[in-house]
Amino acid sequence: MNIISSLEWRYATKKFDPSKKLSNKKISTLKKEFNLTATSFGLQPIKMIVISNKELQEKFIELSYFQRQVADASHLLVFCIENDTTTKDINKYFDLEIKTRNVEEEVISKFRSQLIEMYKNKSIDEKRLSAIYQTYIVLGNLMTVCAVEEIDSCPMEGFIPEKVDELLNLKEQNLQSILLMPVGYRASDDLMSSLKKVRKKESDIIIEIE
Amino acid sequence: MNIISSLEWRYATKKFDPSKKLSNKKISTLKKEFNLTATSFGLQPIKMIVISNKELQEKFIELSYFQRQVADASHLLVFCIENDTTTKDINKYFDLEIKTRNVEEEVISKFRSQLIEMYKNKSIDEKRLSAIYQTYIVLGNLMTVCAVEEIDSCPMEGFIPEKVDELLNLKEQNLQSILLMPVGYRASDDLMSSLKKVRKKESDIIIEIE
Repeated sequence: MNIISSLEWRYATKKFDPSKKLSNKKISTLKKEFNLTATSFGLQPIKMIVISNKELQEKFIELSYFQRQVADASHLLVFCIENDTTTKDINKYFDLEIKTRNVEEEVISKFRSQLIEMYKNKSIDEKRLSAIYQTYIVLGNLMTVCAVEEIDSCPMEGFIPEKVDELLNLKEQNLQSILLMPVGYRASDDLMSSLKKVRKKESDIIIEIE
Repeated sequence: MNIISSLEWRYATKKFDPSKKLSNKKISTLKKEFNLTATSFGLQPIKMIVISNKELQEKFIELSYFQRQVADASHLLVFCIENDTTTKDINKYFDLEIKTRNVEEEVISKFRSQLIEMYKNKSIDEKRLSAIYQTYIVLGNLMTVCAVEEIDSCPMEGFIPEKVDELLNLKEQNLQSILLMPVGYRASDDLMSSLKKVRKKESDIIIEIE
């Protein structure tokens, strides 16, 4: 597989074929790939909501300034942050590390205390912002992964997060929606799919120091 | 190629083999892949600096809290934002679209005015933050792309951006450093490479609504 061809093949799909569904196998793969995304210190202060309920997807049209792809796509992914990263969350991470890697507490205890201290010194806004960054890493990873899997996707910042949070009762779950990504298969008549990519010249966007 | 295996193979490489260099072909591919990364409205308010000068790389060690991977890796990538996104930048994008896609001004003129207006209403901090988000998309894309290309990488937020900006004279170029990513090949004795990935259970990080 040539990954450049995959990156050339992908585009922000504006028109999905509503009759084509992603298989359970594809969704199960996407879930694994989401969970494999690297995050800052491995803390994963994020959640992915996978929606395949058409009635619910229709409600997203109005919340995303009437962009129909949220409803027509096979599945709608909502990337959320957890509203806070607490000492409890950090302890959970290290407990999981001990379990997963079969290491002793003494191996990780110094780093555990340092990370707890570091997060204690962050404001809630700093912690939220750091979590938001992680959702963009997820977006960058999953757009590429989808392209390799020949799944079409559309990264979306343009929606009303407060209304999505309300619709999905996210506040009660201590979550906040940051990004949307409908996934599925492009409609055969999506004009966007045939357009050339608009990209700067490499010499305008890359500096080399040898 | 199985992309899940690639994502499993990658890890934040802490110890690179300083004797192994990425070929010019690999670097040329990475540059293309960087430029293919999707950005908000396609504006690409970012730059990538590719450093393969050992003397300069050594200077990064102190600026990244004595993490040696910045110097030992074959190349050090610095992801930067442009300090502002101006009407001129937006006009340049649309001029490039006209040239690339061979479309008429009338096809894009409405969207051109809307986007200029939208950016006029953003504060400089909002524009900077939006540009920062794009560097995290780049990070997410390139970590995955590197894994597929069997290139080792280490995403790094832990460095002193002001000092990096000074070292590379970025202020004069209207740029600001946001993220580092050394790339190259792992040292055969990097203990981290053999450790299992620590990840939450899927049921703890994914919500499905059917």
